[in-house]
Amino acid sequence: MLMRDDPLAREKVFRDPVHNYIHVSDRVILALIDTPEFQRLRRIKQLGVANYVFQGAEHTRFTHSLGVYEITRKMCESFATNFPSRAPGDGLWDDNERLVALCSALLHDIGHGPYSHTFEHLFGTDHEAITRRILTDPSTAVNAVLKTVSPDFPEQVASVIAHTYPNPQVVQMISSQIDADRMDYLLRDAYHTGTNYGLFDLTRILRVMRPYAGGIAYEADGMHAVEDYIVSRFQMYQQVYFHPVSRSMETILAKLLARAKVLYEAGAFAQDAPRLLVPFFEHDFTLADYLRLDDGVLNTYFTAWCTESDPILADLAGRFLNRRPFKSVSFTAATADQLPALRQLVAAAGFDPAYYTAENDSFDLPYDQYDPEAANPKTQIEIMQPDGTLSELSTQSRLVAAITGRVSGDKRFYFPKVMLEPTSTDLFTPIYRQFQAHVVNGRLK
Amino acid sequence: MLMRDDPLAREKVFRDPVHNYIHVSDRVILALIDTPEFQRLRRIKQLGVANYVFQGAEHTRFTHSLGVYEITRKMCESFATNFPSRAPGDGLWDDNERLVALCSALLHDIGHGPYSHTFEHLFGTDHEAITRRILTDPSTAVNAVLKTVSPDFPEQVASVIAHTYPNPQVVQMISSQIDADRMDYLLRDAYHTGTNYGLFDLTRILRVMRPYAGGIAYEADGMHAVEDYIVSRFQMYQQVYFHPVSRSMETILAKLLARAKVLYEAGAFAQDAPRLLVPFFEHDFTLADYLRLDDGVLNTYFTAWCTESDPILADLAGRFLNRRPFKSVSFTAATADQLPALRQLVAAAGFDPAYYTAENDSFDLPYDQYDPEAANPKTQIEIMQPDGTLSELSTQSRLVAAITGRVSGDKRFYFPKVMLEPTSTDLFTPIYRQFQAHVVNGRLK
Amino acid sequence: MLMRDDPLAREKVFRDPVHNYIHVSDRVILALIDTPEFQRLRRIKQLGVANYVFQGAEHTRFTHSLGVYEITRKMCESFATNFPSRAPGDGLWDDNERLVALCSALLHDIGHGPYSHTFEHLFGTDHEAITRRILTDPSTAVNAVLKTVSPDFPEQVASVIAHTYPNPQVVQMISSQIDADRMDYLLRDAYHTGTNYGLFDLTRILRVMRPYAGGIAYEADGMHAVEDYIVSRFQMYQQVYFHPVSRSMETILAKLLARAKVLYEAGAFAQDAPRLLVPFFEHDFTLADYLRLDDGVLNTYFTAWCTESDPILADLAGRFLNRRPFKSVSFTAATADQLPALRQLVAAAGFDPAYYTAENDSFDLPYDQYDPEAANPKTQIEIMQPDGTLSELSTQSRLVAAITGRVSGDKRFYFPKVMLEPTSTDLFTPIYRQFQAHVVNGRLK
Amino acid sequence: MLMRDDPLAREKVFRDPVHNYIHVSDRVILALIDTPEFQRLRRIKQLGVANYVFQGAEHTRFTHSLGVYEITRKMCESFATNFPSRAPGDGLWDDNERLVALCSALLHDIGHGPYSHTFEHLFGTDHEAITRRILTDPSTAVNAVLKTVSPDFPEQVASVIAHTYPNPQVVQMISSQIDADRMDYLLRDAYHTGTNYGLFDLTRILRVMRPYAGGIAYEADGMHAVEDYIVSRFQMYQQVYFHPVSRSMETILAKLLARAKVLYEAGAFAQDAPRLLVPFFEHDFTLADYLRLDDGVLNTYFTAWCTESDPILADLAGRFLNRRPFKSVSFTAATADQLPALRQLVAAAGFDPAYYTAENDSFDLPYDQYDPEAANPKTQIEIMQPDGTLSELSTQSRLVAAITGRVSGDKRFYFPKVMLEPTSTDLFTPIYRQFQAHVVNGRLK
Repeated sequence: MLMRDDPLAREKVFRDPVHNYIHVSDRVILALIDTPEFQRLRRIKQLGVANYVFQGAEHTRFTHSLGVYEITRKMCESFATNFPSRAPGDGLWDDNERLVALCSALLHDIGHGPYSHTFEHLFGTDHEAITRRILTDPSTAVNAVLKTVSPDFPEQVASVIAHTYPNPQVVQMISSQIDADRMDYLLRDAYHTGTNYGLFDLTRILRVMRPYAGGIAYEADGMHAVEDYIVSRFQMYQQVYFHPVSRSMETILAKLLARAKVLYEAGAFAQDAPRLLVPFFEHDFTLADYLRLDDGVLNTYFTAWCTESDPILADLAGRFLNRRPFKSVSFTAATADQLPALRQLVAAAGFDPAYYTAENDSFDLPYDQYDPEAANPKTQIEIMQPDGTLSELSTQSRLVAAITGRVSGDKRFYFPKVMLEPTSTDLFTPIYRQFQAHVVNGRLK
Repeated sequence: MLMRDDPLAREKVFRDPVHNYIHVSDRVILALIDTPEFQRLRRIKQLGVANYVFQGAEHTRFTHSLGVYEITRKMCESFATNFPSRAPGDGLWDDNERLVALCSALLHDIGHGPYSHTFEHLFGTDHEAITRRILTDPSTAVNAVLKTVSPDFPEQVASVIAHTYPNPQVVQMISSQIDADRMDYLLRDAYHTGTNYGLFDLTRILRVMRPYAGGIAYEADGMHAVEDYIVSRFQMYQQVYFHPVSRSMETILAKLLARAKVLYEAGAFAQDAPRLLVPFFEHDFTLADYLRLDDGVLNTYFTAWCTESDPILADLAGRFLNRRPFKSVSFTAATADQLPALRQLVAAAGFDPAYYTAENDSFDLPYDQYDPEAANPKTQIEIMQPDGTLSELSTQSRLVAAITGRVSGDKRFYFPKVMLEPTSTDLFTPIYRQFQAHVVNGRLK
Repeated sequence: MLMRDDPLAREKVFRDPVHNYIHVSDRVILALIDTPEFQRLRRIKQLGVANYVFQGAEHTRFTHSLGVYEITRKMCESFATNFPSRAPGDGLWDDNERLVALCSALLHDIGHGPYSHTFEHLFGTDHEAITRRILTDPSTAVNAVLKTVSPDFPEQVASVIAHTYPNPQVVQMISSQIDADRMDYLLRDAYHTGTNYGLFDLTRILRVMRPYAGGIAYEADGMHAVEDYIVSRFQMYQQVYFHPVSRSMETILAKLLARAKVLYEAGAFAQDAPRLLVPFFEHDFTLADYLRLDDGVLNTYFTAWCTESDPILADLAGRFLNRRPFKSVSFTAATADQLPALRQLVAAAGFDPAYYTAENDSFDLPYDQYDPEAANPKTQIEIMQPDGTLSELSTQSRLVAAITGRVSGDKRFYFPKVMLEPTSTDLFTPIYRQFQAHVVNGRLK
Repeated sequence: MLMRDDPLAREKVFRDPVHNYIHVSDRVILALIDTPEFQRLRRIKQLGVANYVFQGAEHTRFTHSLGVYEITRKMCESFATNFPSRAPGDGLWDDNERLVALCSALLHDIGHGPYSHTFEHLFGTDHEAITRRILTDPSTAVNAVLKTVSPDFPEQVASVIAHTYPNPQVVQMISSQIDADRMDYLLRDAYHTGTNYGLFDLTRILRVMRPYAGGIAYEADGMHAVEDYIVSRFQMYQQVYFHPVSRSMETILAKLLARAKVLYEAGAFAQDAPRLLVPFFEHDFTLADYLRLDDGVLNTYFTAWCTESDPILADLAGRFLNRRPFKSVSFTAATADQLPALRQLVAAAGFDPAYYTAENDSFDLPYDQYDPEAANPKTQIEIMQPDGTLSELSTQSRLVAAITGRVSGDKRFYFPKVMLEPTSTDLFTPIYRQFQAHVVNGRLK
């Protein structure tokens, strides 16, 4: 049964706190939502460990993925109504692209696993490659559903996500400096964290978007709404995504998994080995192995590890589950030379610095112009003037110009909280004092 | 170190999407939040399976517990400012009760486990008894922290939760027909489900609450805010908590756990037995066993069971994880006699009715007057007139009167979706047709 | 130029805090908004004097009228998409009705003047008759615009507002127990007063509305959203529209205008007579006279009257402008016999009871079933079951049943605040004490 | 009766859509709200003509003034709790300053008249001087109330508003680059316009504010909340306050009043002269004359002028009341030389360019560092590091640095809409074409 032109008898809706309702009128979309690979996203938090800082951030990649779908659906609807293509090559919207856009939006994150960034870094997994496999591997339910549209539809969706799909409008909907993915996560993360930095006027942005031959542009009288979106994104990175305590919890997670791997390799687990992680410890995993993981699986192992005999593993597992973060200070290239001394002090205070200290760099490029020389050239945001000419956003906005092409973030050094505690009668007090002498106003002197 | 009068150097705040900020100024509260027993609530969803229907309902008992604490803190603050006791027995607020009220609020749900109601029903656990044990058992971190206030403080907190604490104001703050628990969950569940049924004017209710000798009363000019709260609660039960599809997912969960228990008892698990569940299968569990469970642990087993050899276990596990709910119809005492016939039809269609059909009754008493004869007498809501006389709420509000003392809800019969599917070429079509002949407008004829 | 099928080149939007954007795609709608008769609504507050109690209630009939238009537009859009008529008489939606529905929605309040209800009561004006004249009188810009659609279009719009238009779907959109008018004012008044009583789920109601031969019905699975709307409306009446202090300010306004009329008739104005009011004092006004009035015109006279020589006029004008309300007590048929005595006490305290006391009844019928015997039969709300049968709302909702067919409200007696002031050294203290002896808990004993 | 330490028996609250409740516990504040001078603010819109563009902007200076009061009250409460002065000169908060701060906040706008900026420009009135007179002139009710606190209290309040009060903390609460006035209007204007540009985290800013000897500083970990406020303010100016159509309506208002003055001076009014405006036409007005004006008074004259015999006056009055704005183009110093030619074309098209063209410059300095050389030196925003050192905001925030010390805005040229209309058969078409040849993308070429 080919599903390409197979609408539902009546539109279905999903209630959503961010978009109010999410509208589904294609049978294939409903079938994709119902696949095990997609339902699995209900068990993977969108923001990993951020709920340790912003307690409301308990939402998952499932709700985010539906949100990205919904924003993309609204884009298609607006384009089909206001800018329908009349002739091939006229640069307007060809509504035959709708289904590939919707499926790409819905599935763009399907390859994510639990605590993605930390996990990937340690085990060398790659969520983009896995997304591609989920789409194109005949073993998955997602692939089976996509093939009901056409035999090459899975590859088409994969190529949108890989940015190689020929229609730049479709690619930019899903992945560009102002795409449905980013717009949903800013709004959704703001809603759940209870911050308002991520708010911007989605309705207005959708109103001023328009297709053109090169992709998607924004009408000039909506420039400020686009500017506000860029500023919101910048602020969310500074205030939420790069929060020092979130990064602390990620650091602990990374150290915990690293320790588990070392113990596994040494055959030193007292309890059963963590069966579902073994393929990753051994760098030899199947897609099925990967799809079995979620936040709960990892936390279940961490709970078990709290009573493992290795004191470092047990302590780090307890720190992670029970939120006992490391403290941190920021440092720069100029002050980084103090780090060896600080690590020695941490060691002198009784902590193995390999597991109880860490450096963490968090940097983001909030917006950039197109630069063909760049390692990773960005599709810049184009503002369309009434006469049809295009101007790059940062030439129109002083606020955007201020952050264009400049990475934002900081480097931090993490260590146990006790190192910063005020003088007590503790044996180690002289060591703590020495440590504290390096620090002022939350940074290395 | 006794913590009773041990304030933090500077108030701490937790950001919260519902209350904006949660304010903590007592060291003991912070210490309780940091216990493993309390942090564990981050891994237990507040609404169990409701996110299968209202996808945003991914919030946990952790954030709810902090919310209940915050509302109680506001009550204490208002009482201390506006109605401070001047002499024992004057019926006003004694601020020495503040700490026991705050701790009781924070910890009132600490005994909950994963998918509480379903789990309890099957395994005979009792979250209230477990709450008491967590508070009073010397093995827990919670108990250790509470004892820093005074040796009998754990018992005091437990007695508030058990409604036996002598001060009725404290008890009613935490548990009555209009308490901090209900007020937080209505607001929070409304926020995350994206419905507005649960909204009411918390600020106004807090303004018109006042202590009196018998507990807590509400000033007459706030009657409508109290009425609105009762109506909101009624509507949330009808619209969210009793949603037929949520109950379907709970039904599947119950059948799944029941099947697992049967297989365990029969020694029929092909894979390893689910070690963390064994103490519950055997009805012989310790507090530590209980505290090791959370949503993720159960889901991890369910994932494994999807590939178990028992087809019923595997199918039910997949239904639960991948959201393939049963369908249902409502029935009454008058139409219940059709259920045996329906079960036979389900069996004839190839499903074991012991696992593929279920009855589910969901009833709630939205509000009631005090009735000393009742099995579970309620503390009624008292409206205080300007001259100090009290009137029971339902005598003041026609809307509340309409739902007072009357349970609301329905009985539903659950079965596989295919039984309701429109005629096809399926072998079983005649059976489905027979089944469908019993049903009209979502109920048994 | 006929405008019937004359869309704008590109849809225009008006930003609105309640609906976010209001969408206009018909040239005739834009032309109607631009008429002087419609722009005049910017100068007439929606809630008259309610901002004296809920200070944010400063919004006007202009924004409300656009809101009613927008809700109606959404109804038409949903009907055209989901329930398009295929053959005459099939009971589905004929999109040729769209323009008459939109114009009726936009213009339904065009006949309102300043402080409508009070003004009408005193001067015998009738905003419904005036609406009709504005629509159909060739002197108005509104009529000129409507005639560009067709010569009989003004009459068609007028007949919708008069409930005599043949298509009951169009009539019920604009005027029924659940119409675009009420839905907008509940949401808008809630937004501006800052209360949440008026909130309900507009999106869901729009989703479950459907045309049928008899008008508009609501699908059964949306029953609770409709119930919630009815309850919201009931609560707004109780809490906002019938607020005793709003009614006090209305009472003062009525007395003030009555006094002015008496003075005019007596030729006793010391300053110039209030020229723009003279036609109303003389019960002989033209449409142009009426259209010249607005809140500002009346307030301008009131400001002048503060320095008139008549002490009652000057005092009442100052009370109205500077918010010095009368106090009130509620009374019933059983306690009404005390009113003459109370009036005498007010007189004894030095106030003319004709101007300084008043009775005010505020009653509303929140919802009713259809009753052909009733003076003003209501179109009841019909819930459509899956098999197409209709059930009247109150048979489906216990909450609605509680308020169906029963008027809600109270009778209050108004008088100067000093009558309730606590004993002082005032000469009149014995009189005040006598007065106060009649009152307990805000009502007559 | 001295009111300094005269609290109300029980706190009063005013419901407010922006702050939810406004809390009043001082008798003097309630008495000030009840004065005619303050109640008059109910009749003066906060944003003048902005509701012609953002229709919801119908709120008044009354609600804004209460909002400024409420934010100031929260500042005082936080300072009194967290930073109470222990000894004179310790730079902490002396709660004896509370009442002068609250009264200054409440009354800071009391001298505003209708359509303030336009009116002042034409008639040379000065709302700051009038504020001072209302506070200190024995004829006002405000002065009488303030004197109940102490004989010199009116002067104290006036000196706060004039920035000459000795305590810089009090002055900066009311008037600085981040004061209660700006914070309220950004939130309130955002609420009523329905835009979200003006939103920022007021609660967090209040939490990180702290008094020091030089005024008010912000703790370093709240820097981003302060940054967000500055960016919000910048965006509101760009998007709302400087909207070209609002400025068009202001332009029309200015021309209308100018024409009326000319006619008055020429004795050319056909109807009665506008009595309440005469003192202003003659530049000889009393405080009482000024206090008699409000939006409604002016609009009442404008309504009358629609039928005056002077065609320019009548047309401009109609344009203003019925929203028929001029169109505009932006220009720069480089393109300003085309303006004479454009004015000639407007004249050639039949419009008197003195009344039908205008230049409008709107510029704002969104934030600046302290510069003793500046004409109007600003109190810069100080960020306090953990060790107590201060850093000026723009050194900490890249976004703020981008807009520091640089005025934002544009110059626009206004003219009748017909000049931009597309070619028609109009006699003047060649003139319009010539005009349009100067314009591209909304600016002069």
